[in-house]
Amino acid sequence: GYVLANQVSELIGTRANLFIDGKHRGASVKNAKKISENEYAGMDVILVLGGDGTLLSVAKEASNLNLPVIGINLGRLGFLAEIEREEIEEGLNKLFAGDYEIEERMMLHAVLLDGKETTALNDIVVTRASSTLKILDLDIFIDDEYVDDFKADGIIIATPTGSTAYSLSAGGPIVDPSLNSMIVTPVCPHKMYSRTIIVPPEKTVTVKCKAAIDNEAVVAADSEILGKLSGNETVVIQIAQKNFKLIRFKGYKFFSVLHNKLVKKES
Amino acid sequence: GYVLANQVSELIGTRANLFIDGKHRGASVKNAKKISENEYAGMDVILVLGGDGTLLSVAKEASNLNLPVIGINLGRLGFLAEIEREEIEEGLNKLFAGDYEIEERMMLHAVLLDGKETTALNDIVVTRASSTLKILDLDIFIDDEYVDDFKADGIIIATPTGSTAYSLSAGGPIVDPSLNSMIVTPVCPHKMYSRTIIVPPEKTVTVKCKAAIDNEAVVAADSEILGKLSGNETVVIQIAQKNFKLIRFKGYKFFSVLHNKLVKKES
Amino acid sequence: GYVLANQVSELIGTRANLFIDGKHRGASVKNAKKISENEYAGMDVILVLGGDGTLLSVAKEASNLNLPVIGINLGRLGFLAEIEREEIEEGLNKLFAGDYEIEERMMLHAVLLDGKETTALNDIVVTRASSTLKILDLDIFIDDEYVDDFKADGIIIATPTGSTAYSLSAGGPIVDPSLNSMIVTPVCPHKMYSRTIIVPPEKTVTVKCKAAIDNEAVVAADSEILGKLSGNETVVIQIAQKNFKLIRFKGYKFFSVLHNKLVKKES
Amino acid sequence: GYVLANQVSELIGTRANLFIDGKHRGASVKNAKKISENEYAGMDVILVLGGDGTLLSVAKEASNLNLPVIGINLGRLGFLAEIEREEIEEGLNKLFAGDYEIEERMMLHAVLLDGKETTALNDIVVTRASSTLKILDLDIFIDDEYVDDFKADGIIIATPTGSTAYSLSAGGPIVDPSLNSMIVTPVCPHKMYSRTIIVPPEKTVTVKCKAAIDNEAVVAADSEILGKLSGNETVVIQIAQKNFKLIRFKGYKFFSVLHNKLVKKES
Repeated sequence: GYVLANQVSELIGTRANLFIDGKHRGASVKNAKKISENEYAGMDVILVLGGDGTLLSVAKEASNLNLPVIGINLGRLGFLAEIEREEIEEGLNKLFAGDYEIEERMMLHAVLLDGKETTALNDIVVTRASSTLKILDLDIFIDDEYVDDFKADGIIIATPTGSTAYSLSAGGPIVDPSLNSMIVTPVCPHKMYSRTIIVPPEKTVTVKCKAAIDNEAVVAADSEILGKLSGNETVVIQIAQKNFKLIRFKGYKFFSVLHNKLVKKES
Repeated sequence: GYVLANQVSELIGTRANLFIDGKHRGASVKNAKKISENEYAGMDVILVLGGDGTLLSVAKEASNLNLPVIGINLGRLGFLAEIEREEIEEGLNKLFAGDYEIEERMMLHAVLLDGKETTALNDIVVTRASSTLKILDLDIFIDDEYVDDFKADGIIIATPTGSTAYSLSAGGPIVDPSLNSMIVTPVCPHKMYSRTIIVPPEKTVTVKCKAAIDNEAVVAADSEILGKLSGNETVVIQIAQKNFKLIRFKGYKFFSVLHNKLVKKES
Repeated sequence: GYVLANQVSELIGTRANLFIDGKHRGASVKNAKKISENEYAGMDVILVLGGDGTLLSVAKEASNLNLPVIGINLGRLGFLAEIEREEIEEGLNKLFAGDYEIEERMMLHAVLLDGKETTALNDIVVTRASSTLKILDLDIFIDDEYVDDFKADGIIIATPTGSTAYSLSAGGPIVDPSLNSMIVTPVCPHKMYSRTIIVPPEKTVTVKCKAAIDNEAVVAADSEILGKLSGNETVVIQIAQKNFKLIRFKGYKFFSVLHNKLVKKES
Repeated sequence: GYVLANQVSELIGTRANLFIDGKHRGASVKNAKKISENEYAGMDVILVLGGDGTLLSVAKEASNLNLPVIGINLGRLGFLAEIEREEIEEGLNKLFAGDYEIEERMMLHAVLLDGKETTALNDIVVTRASSTLKILDLDIFIDDEYVDDFKADGIIIATPTGSTAYSLSAGGPIVDPSLNSMIVTPVCPHKMYSRTIIVPPEKTVTVKCKAAIDNEAVVAADSEILGKLSGNETVVIQIAQKNFKLIRFKGYKFFSVLHNKLVKKES
């Protein structure tokens, strides 16, 4: 990636000051000053070189600081990246010309009983704690209303952004990224009638681990483990207060990107 | 049904003036004056005795006139009805005591090329015109953006209210009725990757019949046929301007009604 | 197609006598004698120029006469055709060299109450009789055992060959063509727990239209309408006595054909 | 369970000699001699008190010794048990009267590269080795033919018996238990077109872990962990040589048991 980072640095030239964050302090990129991870404040744009995973990993900090993000796709799929590898020069020119729009993407906020909390751009996933193959037994509530119990491998609460990620693999629908909502999908539910539920953004989704012995779950936010749930413990999920800001060049088409990346690259 | 209608009339007594609409002019119900179908104006409430189908059949007129509707469920499932057959007296008392809330439900508006238009509370369905078993070939657009072509038996554009009806049978998700959105689900799509798409209420869904010979579709709104689509013709679907107003007693629980009606009665 | 038919005729030259069947009596193909449709007897091979639909249309007669069939794919997908358009010369050479194997494909046999009967290579479909959008109400039996009632748009009983056709669109699995079995899949079932059922070849599947008013279904075999089902009428489906014989060149790979045709061409 | 075991012992009386296996050596059951786990040889019938899990746990040994098994259902679902808790006396009388049939159920045999092997009555599951949430990357082969690669949470190879267990939760079909076959279903596959594949009993299914770093899977047989798969390692699955023999009273109906247990108890 550092060859590419240097190429990007050269293409940017004197048009901007370049910084490299703490996760990549080993990188030697020309004209780029190194910063520690908590020094994003004061930046104008975060430029991510990588796949969607890399982009997800800066989402929390970027949204906290209201910093817009643009991705150069080095990964396989890269739904979120706006610039493909072969369009870097053109993309940077549009960026510096201000020829772009900011697309707001809602995020989720999750809190555990012990106070641990985080935000996620794709999804909050409750899944089996280990490889014991024991099925989970979960109660789901929307606001104060009991929905159902799910004996399942897990449950996914996705944003519209995450609706094309793990949620889709579990059978969930594709949700237009401008429709703020939570997409609740069980993974391998025992009950044959279980379906995805689409929840409005002003409501709260609570997942509760039932009090059975050995009923232990892991909660992950964008694939990062946040903590565990044992019997009677809950994770409470709401829409986050701050959005993630994606830089999109004018003419960005959600469905053609979807088709090109999801269908063509996968076949 | 008329035994029940008379029972309802007696239970209402002098608390209200009762009218019977033109569709049921054959009915002899005590104390009920007959009106023609276009005389709903000036009424306070429409009381529907029947299943969801009967309730759907007054939705268009009721929403036009901003009249709230309450259903007494004589059908098998009856998601929309608030009063079950065994709770009529109690239900009417709550109604006259004003012990209820109005639940707003969005509707869809569909227009054909020839100007025919209608609204629907559950769904707009594009389906095969006859029993020739010929598959349809449809292009779908969201606003001006081309989504994909669907070779399928048909396509369903549902409201959240309709998400628990035909849309669910075709594999669609359950959408909380307070989340205004359009749920676009293909019926038996050829393409294995086709999924439900959830569209925000400010966008427009256009279904276009491709120009192939014998590619003829029927458009139906809440199961009533609106018209036909031949090659290159479209149906344009948006959220309707007026909502449907359902009377709900306090304490109404969407998910427990769903579970009781969808799961228990079906098993 | 007749340009191609003449090209095939030339490539065959004197290696075989060529006949054209009654459905294509308008075709003028060099060196090809015209026969009526019931004169296939005495032939060695049926050569089909077209898509899977064309091939399906000779399946019944070919299996009756134990005649092997080879297809030249002019259609879009063509799972059954062995020769692609760009490989005709090579394919014909293999055919005349005897460098092939016969792949046996089971067929289905369907009988209506009035005695009408037929066979099908892909599927027997029970579907709505008209475009009234009325849902069907069907009882399913396997041998004498009652399975369930299906309120649905229809039901598909497919062969393994048909498992990659309409049955797949309705959510059915892919069945290895060498596993004789019947794949029973409802189309848009009301009951959320309805699933595909795989039935062994020695059993009988009976579909019965319930006795409700307006409950009228059409029965189709390989998309050809066989007849209607009204209240209490049945269609009885079993494995046919005779197989369909497909000519396959050595090295034919089911899953790579599936992947190339089903996934790549569709994306 | 031991109250029940004593009740069963009393009901059996002098009609048979009763033994208790090594797993339950703590149990004090009247008139029952204790045996170690490898002393089943010489028995006539294995009587299982418990749910399907308990029955699965004796399947391997029972099939090795060709011993028929009958279950008394103390669990929640109990598809395999023939005797419900409230029918014990009647069931035991039928058993001693010989008023039953033997239903043969195929099993699967799985071998790892290191030679570890086992059999399973429900399924062989390849799943994530830990809770890292890393997706697996697996290649599937049927005999020597490459089928596809699956980026997924796992893959299930089920018997018809197992088709109503985990395989069903993952979206697989219901397979009549008399149709010997392997039901291959991915769990949350990335590729939207992935479907269940039904494989004939004479073929071999091979699951291979791709050579990526961190691509480590666990193989489980009937929920018991057999071993791990790292990069380039395989598990090879075939139909087992010996069947599992279930005692069924005359008049046993697969689909009514299925409906009662799967649908009614779950709703």
